[in-house]
Amino acid sequence: MKTIIPAILNDAKDKLVILDQTLLPEEEVFLELDKREDIWEAIKKLRVRGAPAIGISAAFGVYVCANNIETDDVAAFSKEVKAIKDYLATSRPTAVNLFWALDRMWDRLEKEVEAGSSVAEIKKAFLEESEEILREDQEMGLAIGKYGLELLKPGMGLLTHCNAGGLACSGIGTALAPMYAGDDAGYDFKIYADETRPLLQGARLTAYELYKAGLDVTVICDNMASIVMRQGKIDAVLVGTDRITANGDVINKIGTSGVAILAKEYGVPFYVLGPYSTIDLNTATGDDVEIELRDADEIGNGFGKRTALAEVKAYNPAFDITDHKYVTAIITEKGIVRPPYKENLAKLFQE
Amino acid sequence: MKTIIPAILNDAKDKLVILDQTLLPEEEVFLELDKREDIWEAIKKLRVRGAPAIGISAAFGVYVCANNIETDDVAAFSKEVKAIKDYLATSRPTAVNLFWALDRMWDRLEKEVEAGSSVAEIKKAFLEESEEILREDQEMGLAIGKYGLELLKPGMGLLTHCNAGGLACSGIGTALAPMYAGDDAGYDFKIYADETRPLLQGARLTAYELYKAGLDVTVICDNMASIVMRQGKIDAVLVGTDRITANGDVINKIGTSGVAILAKEYGVPFYVLGPYSTIDLNTATGDDVEIELRDADEIGNGFGKRTALAEVKAYNPAFDITDHKYVTAIITEKGIVRPPYKENLAKLFQE
Repeated sequence: MKTIIPAILNDAKDKLVILDQTLLPEEEVFLELDKREDIWEAIKKLRVRGAPAIGISAAFGVYVCANNIETDDVAAFSKEVKAIKDYLATSRPTAVNLFWALDRMWDRLEKEVEAGSSVAEIKKAFLEESEEILREDQEMGLAIGKYGLELLKPGMGLLTHCNAGGLACSGIGTALAPMYAGDDAGYDFKIYADETRPLLQGARLTAYELYKAGLDVTVICDNMASIVMRQGKIDAVLVGTDRITANGDVINKIGTSGVAILAKEYGVPFYVLGPYSTIDLNTATGDDVEIELRDADEIGNGFGKRTALAEVKAYNPAFDITDHKYVTAIITEKGIVRPPYKENLAKLFQE
Repeated sequence: MKTIIPAILNDAKDKLVILDQTLLPEEEVFLELDKREDIWEAIKKLRVRGAPAIGISAAFGVYVCANNIETDDVAAFSKEVKAIKDYLATSRPTAVNLFWALDRMWDRLEKEVEAGSSVAEIKKAFLEESEEILREDQEMGLAIGKYGLELLKPGMGLLTHCNAGGLACSGIGTALAPMYAGDDAGYDFKIYADETRPLLQGARLTAYELYKAGLDVTVICDNMASIVMRQGKIDAVLVGTDRITANGDVINKIGTSGVAILAKEYGVPFYVLGPYSTIDLNTATGDDVEIELRDADEIGNGFGKRTALAEVKAYNPAFDITDHKYVTAIITEKGIVRPPYKENLAKLFQE
């Protein structure tokens, strides 16, 4: 597979190396971090973003910070690690993957302490654990890429929305995974990326990473999805997901539901790709999920320039709900799920 | 009716007074023009835009420039007017209304010359003719507003796309006309304006003029139209039109067709409002219209900041085609037309 731009590099074992996504697409700056304040700031300021990438960064963050603790006393070491963990947890208090990764590192510490490991051994265990989290994420991407590719044919036109690629994860991402897998197999896709207002993750990140990996990508404004489908340029839509409810409704970046409705109207299959862990059987339908509202200025003053009067109201929901009736299939690392979703998603968990 | 911001003021009879739309929404600067080079530049640089507004500006432009010609010799005067007309015609060579207005002023001159009018009388006739063009446009807006309002109820949520308001015309515009008419009748609409990428006419112009006129307007990104419809915030969609073909297909600002499809899916009526003159019975369907492609940098570098790598392709069609099957009704100054459009639009021309 061609090299893609990773959100996280783990070549330097004593540093967390991340690509600063706030500077994209204009500047490609890698940050080498080993101070807790710098790692906290990188997560807080979205220099690294995307649920899997945040989790991986937090795990490596615990490792590199712990690695700098100068003591051989396990109790003193553990106390300091706890402080690091609690501090990093305050960087993005709504990011579930952040807590998940920090808790997993802490569990590993407790296991090592119980087993009588030395500080040096716990440091080594932290490296192992964070590398394992990274590897699992990369394997998840490869599996989604393989299953997703079964649904596609060479030469197809593909549309995606927002960024569910390597920049949100570590390996080849989720929605973009079949594109990379197909490219590797010589499929020659023509990819269209919605720019994805207001924060333009499609233009800034998706187009960037696909272009850098040598894939054929064209940016469009979100409101152009209809005309490119009408013109027959799109054979399938591939999007990521933040959460899938028990009935198959999809919570994802604002604008996803509009693309899904257009796809249905134009007879284009609409595929949702994401980790198995995003399926939430405890939530019945999309209407049970509260949608985060963000600052109006992201719309009216988003790029250092006023595009609407400051006095004018703006409505800025971060996500929307795609009704399951518009979803052709859901692809996770465990395989392809088709309707009826209520039955088939539940079955996936029984297996 | 509350005062709205006009694209053109004709209070100063010896000057063409226009609001410089390139500075909106940050600055509200009125330009007072009476030199042909300045009027040419204002049209060329989109300081005034919108087909009706361009026509009116050109007509008043001929008057104010002709008014400055210092001769009593009708032949010399006519020659100079011809030079002004030909020069202004080069400002936006694809704007049909520009030629229409310039030709109408020239026809008036020929009629006056034939009738033996003096230079002073022809100047007076030019003022009359340009005021008549302005009045006709304002009456068109009032009539569309009246017919459009018949389709709406007090308290409704309305969505519009791009700018088909007073800033594109002179009076109350076309798509926005029923909103102003309703406001005058105490209808208390909740209006949503798509920001309309890439050039943001919805955020910059529509939200600006509705807010300045005291109406309740909220800006959304184009990709939020689906969620606001799902939430029941929208009772009707009102859009303008650049051209309506014989079968009722609508050529309008990019993104219009997507909004129309969402409206159908959510059971929201979709109304197209425009002058009778935009109906083109000589073109059979929307597919017979060539869609203008614009510069990729409007997408990737539109906010004075790179939002996509310069090397990445962007596809930037200026218009799209809304299939007539999504159009609930077409409203012109002559009344409301409903499907079947092929029959009913043809009938409108026979009347």
